[in-house]
Amino acid sequence: MNPYQAPLKDMQFLLEQVFDAQATWEQLPAMADVVDMDTAFAILEEANKISRDLLHPLNRSGDEQGVVHKGNDIITPDGFKEVYQQFSDGGWVGLCGEPEFGGMGMPKMLGVLVDEMGYSACNSFTLYSSLTAGAALCINAHANDELKQTYLPNLYTGQWAGAMDMTEPHAGSDLRGIRTKAEPLDDGSYSITGNKIFITGGDQDLTENVIHLVLAKLPGSKGISLFLVPKITVNADGSLGEHNGVTVGSIEHKMGLKASATCVMNYDNAKGFLVGEPDRGLVCMFTMMNYERLAIGLQGLGNAQAAYQMASEYAKDRLQGIAAAGSATGATSDPIIVHGDVRRMLLTIRAMTEAGRALSVYTGKQLDLAKYASGDVQAKAARYVGLLTPVSKAFLTDRGLDATITGQQVFGGHGYIRETGIEQFVRDTRIAQIYEGTNGIQAIDFLGRKITGDNVATLTEFVAEVNASMTELTQANAEHKAMVSQVFAELLTTANYVNDNKKTQPALVNSCAVDFLDAFGYAVYGYFWLLMADKASSHEDQSFAAQKQFVANFYMDKLLSKSQYHLSQVNQGDKSIMAMPADMF
Amino acid sequence: MNPYQAPLKDMQFLLEQVFDAQATWEQLPAMADVVDMDTAFAILEEANKISRDLLHPLNRSGDEQGVVHKGNDIITPDGFKEVYQQFSDGGWVGLCGEPEFGGMGMPKMLGVLVDEMGYSACNSFTLYSSLTAGAALCINAHANDELKQTYLPNLYTGQWAGAMDMTEPHAGSDLRGIRTKAEPLDDGSYSITGNKIFITGGDQDLTENVIHLVLAKLPGSKGISLFLVPKITVNADGSLGEHNGVTVGSIEHKMGLKASATCVMNYDNAKGFLVGEPDRGLVCMFTMMNYERLAIGLQGLGNAQAAYQMASEYAKDRLQGIAAAGSATGATSDPIIVHGDVRRMLLTIRAMTEAGRALSVYTGKQLDLAKYASGDVQAKAARYVGLLTPVSKAFLTDRGLDATITGQQVFGGHGYIRETGIEQFVRDTRIAQIYEGTNGIQAIDFLGRKITGDNVATLTEFVAEVNASMTELTQANAEHKAMVSQVFAELLTTANYVNDNKKTQPALVNSCAVDFLDAFGYAVYGYFWLLMADKASSHEDQSFAAQKQFVANFYMDKLLSKSQYHLSQVNQGDKSIMAMPADMF
Repeated sequence: MNPYQAPLKDMQFLLEQVFDAQATWEQLPAMADVVDMDTAFAILEEANKISRDLLHPLNRSGDEQGVVHKGNDIITPDGFKEVYQQFSDGGWVGLCGEPEFGGMGMPKMLGVLVDEMGYSACNSFTLYSSLTAGAALCINAHANDELKQTYLPNLYTGQWAGAMDMTEPHAGSDLRGIRTKAEPLDDGSYSITGNKIFITGGDQDLTENVIHLVLAKLPGSKGISLFLVPKITVNADGSLGEHNGVTVGSIEHKMGLKASATCVMNYDNAKGFLVGEPDRGLVCMFTMMNYERLAIGLQGLGNAQAAYQMASEYAKDRLQGIAAAGSATGATSDPIIVHGDVRRMLLTIRAMTEAGRALSVYTGKQLDLAKYASGDVQAKAARYVGLLTPVSKAFLTDRGLDATITGQQVFGGHGYIRETGIEQFVRDTRIAQIYEGTNGIQAIDFLGRKITGDNVATLTEFVAEVNASMTELTQANAEHKAMVSQVFAELLTTANYVNDNKKTQPALVNSCAVDFLDAFGYAVYGYFWLLMADKASSHEDQSFAAQKQFVANFYMDKLLSKSQYHLSQVNQGDKSIMAMPADMF
Repeated sequence: MNPYQAPLKDMQFLLEQVFDAQATWEQLPAMADVVDMDTAFAILEEANKISRDLLHPLNRSGDEQGVVHKGNDIITPDGFKEVYQQFSDGGWVGLCGEPEFGGMGMPKMLGVLVDEMGYSACNSFTLYSSLTAGAALCINAHANDELKQTYLPNLYTGQWAGAMDMTEPHAGSDLRGIRTKAEPLDDGSYSITGNKIFITGGDQDLTENVIHLVLAKLPGSKGISLFLVPKITVNADGSLGEHNGVTVGSIEHKMGLKASATCVMNYDNAKGFLVGEPDRGLVCMFTMMNYERLAIGLQGLGNAQAAYQMASEYAKDRLQGIAAAGSATGATSDPIIVHGDVRRMLLTIRAMTEAGRALSVYTGKQLDLAKYASGDVQAKAARYVGLLTPVSKAFLTDRGLDATITGQQVFGGHGYIRETGIEQFVRDTRIAQIYEGTNGIQAIDFLGRKITGDNVATLTEFVAEVNASMTELTQANAEHKAMVSQVFAELLTTANYVNDNKKTQPALVNSCAVDFLDAFGYAVYGYFWLLMADKASSHEDQSFAAQKQFVANFYMDKLLSKSQYHLSQVNQGDKSIMAMPADMF
């Protein structure tokens, strides 16, 4: 099996031709000074080397060895510490961080592609840095200047890591029930006591400190507040002080992600610092959550890409049977890529993965505009970020599992053997549909808040923009344009049906949310395929252009109509879902 | 988590009310003497106890401990040997075996339900006995009397085990390339030399001998022959002789099924006995393969049932959030079963699993008729067995993975933790889509041989019988009957489209086979739901009757139309699948 190779040509195509990153960056003062297309390409090439040569070699050995909890220490597998040091030294943890505090200030449009590579190469490794970047984002957005100056620089350099401490045994999807307490101290800080479960990177031996963002309740309040709780306290001069009463109770034994430490955390009068306003912790945490939700979508995307590479290579190499029309080469056995069913599997992975990459770059662009633009452009981008975040998380991770399962199927019996490697991607990617809010929760957020929360206004705006954009795609297939336009029209109709009935049928949104999100996902991928086929038609590499058209044709032929299937499910309503009494289950 | 409980009421309902087993058995001389409904129910109750109290407790510990290859020995996890002894002593290995050689002669209609329980309780354990029963079936069908008398009694008692040795490194789905050789010896036996991979139960410490059915080539022949090769030779008096040059090279480390030994087998001039005619080994092996294919379908079904039990119990117990319409009890947190999305997931598993059980019993009935009936009844049943075997294997195992994945999703983060147990079912059931012929191979067999191989004659016959049966279902919903009838009409139209174009589009069958099989599966489940809803309407347990109607309504509302979605895929043909050159993948 060849090592992982990032799909650099496709990544560059998306930035340059499809989403016109250069023009976007030139319009944004904060971006114009730090990035241009040459810089972006150089970063992608370097990220490819790091992912392929440093991270990927840790992937299988990390899975075999796993994380070990020994005494008070969490020990990561061999090589993780050294590579994390190199990764940090390269500035990768702070790639999109604030330049004021030592980050590189790169756009998210670029960052999503680097994240994708990391997840393709090694899920467990990439989670450590991704959570650190997310914690820094939250601190930057909500903490006071003193906290920012104390913590951000060492987070961006990777010297310290970040963690997000939300879940408790009885408070997962529903955080109202959390019991961790924060008592105010005389010095303005707080004393945190309680425990959390499922804390990714709750501790490790990669960094000298771990900065926890902990949800807890103030005395007498039902509201939830957010606290920064370092594993080791930081002295006024920035040096490390004493251990802060933050300990790991145990680590979880999981289906996959075995090199990622998933910790039970205990806080025993740990010193914490309020981030944001009291009782407004969930709002603050959502800054991090939204970032992580996109990042987890990228996990699904990266895993799908890895699955495609492994499976397509195997299919071109493995000889079994001959082509249905007879072997073109006269051989007694053909590579299995000649078989329609194998091609169907590979094309499905590829069509969903390349459109998924387009979704991730598009969402990254909206995040950049929401952060760095102003006026109407900024406001619209913020609406689109809200719309697209749950889709990016859920649709990319659901399709990530599909892709790894389908890729594994291409391998036949060899796909079930650990040594082959693809079964690890199935196990590692499975959690992405669950953590940072299950995909059901994402769908309910999408249909309940983002679609019907504003009476379909943002979706209507988005569809109008898509339709306007499609009229400009002169090189795209006219029939395909009509098909995608029709799907979006039906999507709007169904959204309005749900909106019109949401009050009289209170279970409608919850019951139909997953189907609606899927319907949106397949529709928007149809738009992205039109866009890519159109832009690729003038690509200097004719093979690249032809491939995009072949895969676009496959998408339109075979996958776009899934949108309509899922809409038909939504249109059936919630009656047959809600009718059976609970005790009959 | 409560221990596994077989769905006895549903199993009895299928035998008694839905498929009228008593009348079937009374009409078959070989059955009338050995089984009636009381016997069948007693066997089911006993099988439930064995599965729940003996097999299920081995499931997780077996996964944790795994099989060990030490020196020349394959060591199964703690408890397997003792339980296998008890299981064998109870006669369960020979449940459906020939009474002439010590089998219990029970009908397959009943056997499928016992197998399902075994797979729900412990996949790895059940494979050992299932392969033994399959090997006995093949020997009984094709071997000479001497081999039958020598080997069948000890296989039926479970004293010896059976294995199916087909795959070689370069010969998996395509067996033409196998290299294992059989040289004739003077005494009429053969000397077998070569090696095989992926041999389930290739060796273990549960039984004193393992009887391998090995595919090999005779000198100078391209044809494939079948040989019986015992691990330890058997003397003329039936006592065990010497080791027979059959050794385990290594065992595979797999995604799941860790307590099942998957072996690389080496044969070094091992003594073997021809089974059936020279060069007709594949035909003989298919007797076993067809049995195993249905058995593997039952693995998918059993795993789906286990997933439903675990997930529905969790959903009724786990408190998170409140119902969309407000808590009915006024509680601050409701069990998650109140949420539409959770109900949707559970209803999907349940609707597919209960219809899948109907498919397995129906297929079992056809197997019994094909074996024990005569004349037209026998001939038609044999055609239906051919039609339904690939569907039972592929559709039940694909839905088995869906069910375990969906069940895991209900658990949220807890579903990813090994301790919870459901992630093991995901890992264990994944192989069922691959082994005994990948589900792609099943679909190509279905559409290529079973549907278009006789120019749609058997399917047309089957659909006519379904339509005739539906007219008799006076208690079933008329609208639902019309919907199912419509789906079958479209299925026939699409089958004829493929049949009409299979010669001019040689890749059509291979490209569209998986979608066609899925379309058939959802259609036939529609019929089974009508049948079950109709028959349940007079069930003495009103709650049982109501549940069947609720789930039938859900199926018709939400799942039946998947058949039409998959047909639309078939009708799109193979053009976009076959167009892209192989080097562009």
